Amino acid sequence: MLLHHRDDAAKGNLVEFRPDIKVLDCSVRDGSLVNNARFEDGFVRAVYDACAAAGVDYMELGYKSSQRVFSVNDYGPWKFCKEDDLRRVIGDSPHALKLSVMADSHRTDYHTDILPKDQSVIDMVRVACYIHQIPGALDLVRDAHDKGYETTLNLMSISRVSERELCDGLEVIAKSPVDVMYLVDSFGSLYPETTRDLAMGYLEIMKSAGKEVGIHAHNNQQLAFANTIQALTIGVSYLDATIYGLGRGAGNCPMELLLGFLRNPKFDIRPILNCITNAFLPLRTTTEWGYDIPYMITGQFNEHPREAIKFLESESTDYLGFYKAMEDF
Amino acid sequence: MLLHHRDDAAKGNLVEFRPDIKVLDCSVRDGSLVNNARFEDGFVRAVYDACAAAGVDYMELGYKSSQRVFSVNDYGPWKFCKEDDLRRVIGDSPHALKLSVMADSHRTDYHTDILPKDQSVIDMVRVACYIHQIPGALDLVRDAHDKGYETTLNLMSISRVSERELCDGLEVIAKSPVDVMYLVDSFGSLYPETTRDLAMGYLEIMKSAGKEVGIHAHNNQQLAFANTIQALTIGVSYLDATIYGLGRGAGNCPMELLLGFLRNPKFDIRPILNCITNAFLPLRTTTEWGYDIPYMITGQFNEHPREAIKFLESESTDYLGFYKAMEDF
Repeated sequence: MLLHHRDDAAKGNLVEFRPDIKVLDCSVRDGSLVNNARFEDGFVRAVYDACAAAGVDYMELGYKSSQRVFSVNDYGPWKFCKEDDLRRVIGDSPHALKLSVMADSHRTDYHTDILPKDQSVIDMVRVACYIHQIPGALDLVRDAHDKGYETTLNLMSISRVSERELCDGLEVIAKSPVDVMYLVDSFGSLYPETTRDLAMGYLEIMKSAGKEVGIHAHNNQQLAFANTIQALTIGVSYLDATIYGLGRGAGNCPMELLLGFLRNPKFDIRPILNCITNAFLPLRTTTEWGYDIPYMITGQFNEHPREAIKFLESESTDYLGFYKAMEDF
Repeated sequence: MLLHHRDDAAKGNLVEFRPDIKVLDCSVRDGSLVNNARFEDGFVRAVYDACAAAGVDYMELGYKSSQRVFSVNDYGPWKFCKEDDLRRVIGDSPHALKLSVMADSHRTDYHTDILPKDQSVIDMVRVACYIHQIPGALDLVRDAHDKGYETTLNLMSISRVSERELCDGLEVIAKSPVDVMYLVDSFGSLYPETTRDLAMGYLEIMKSAGKEVGIHAHNNQQLAFANTIQALTIGVSYLDATIYGLGRGAGNCPMELLLGFLRNPKFDIRPILNCITNAFLPLRTTTEWGYDIPYMITGQFNEHPREAIKFLESESTDYLGFYKAMEDF
């Protein structure tokens, strides 16, 4: 018979579900990179309600950014995630799903801006950093951990880091109090094969330290969903997704695809579909994101999407010219 | 170190190339399902020139359909692929890449309409059929084979066929003179894991009979490219793709993603990018295809995309209503 060729590394199967799987919606947070965090309260509330009804485990509301680095005049409230703004939209009462914020390790005044957990509606602080920022990021992790939060470390741009440096980084992170270590495909340049390799490395190091591994994928090569399910198949358990794939550049792993794949009956795709119709189709008329040829090209070249964003803003469709420019970049 | 977790079943690696890989462009053929084969000559010629310059191995020009079944008044020339139409666009001189046509097993007058190879510009006849049509399809394969053509068998809708029946089918096909057996994901419902299982089964049976295996994927769940590279990783060697993902419903594996992945220096993505700018962006203003929520839903339900096509034609955006309708379908 045909169906006996399972990958030896697979955890679980296609019919049962793994109770360790957690889904995190980062529509508003990653979307904040598209529109400078200028989402209306009603939109954020619509995402919150949809995620709560869909059984999503976490919703990320935005960045916890320093007002010394970023001006409140240039960004909407989801760039700073002040407690009052969060409570205005989410309410004070016990919330239906856990809330997270992202803190860029070197652009967050965490000693003052991250309150003790019992004074905040936030449940989890996700710390983003580059390889050379790990020590500072771990100081932020420790601060948030000591204040009572769940914590993750999201190490960015790993597709341009040497394997040696990455391993050294993971070994250091494994000794920290962080709960979840994220595999982040910042440029959408990973293939399922490379995702599998990397995820197995992350899992080996993190599982033996009692930590979970997550994945945050970008869709430059239409592989965000494929890479996410490749990673989960071999044991990654925290899965980032955004409704309708919202996110910077080519966007992220679409929540609707992910919930359609997961088999835990607590997940329900229906509220997400409704939210797409009512909140995301209107957003689409003013805001652009998603797979497009220039983002594919930066993904293929393992480059930051910023050049593609610039090219698209120019309204040129000279894809060959852009490709040649990236060859010489 | 991290990168030592290769799938044991992998053939080749991410740096070298496999000389057995053949790329087949079916933009015009699968695209003919979108617009009733009404492509202008200039468009077909642009695809041909781009594929030739890009090192693509085969280009499929359309269907070889019976004029008793389909009226020439209802369809453009690529529904019938008459020799004169092909020569008008491609020319009589030796062509730069091999040409194929698709023949639906029970809607082709192959005894009369498929000429002996030495009277045709066509190099390969690809026979499409459902599981219950295999005997008739193999008669067509034998006819084309005896006339001097390369042949493939593209068995459709296998995601709704029992494993027992599928194995029986493959065993029968393995005894025929067909050169290449295609794994076809008609509904875009396969995941990389299921693609891997099925491809290994196809390969086991076909390789021992001296045949190659191909893959034709649809993009309902943004997995057409992922499933294609999953299949090729374990030994599938004929890869279908379409420029800009053109094709019925959610479309196909995008050629530009595939050529960006392949490492054989004979492949060149640049002419494809140019062709997107010059021929596909204009087509896009009049013709719709590609990933969309209704196609995702039929993919998740393992259904033919026809209900999604109908829903999109109605211009409704009530995705939840469509989902519920498919639940009760």
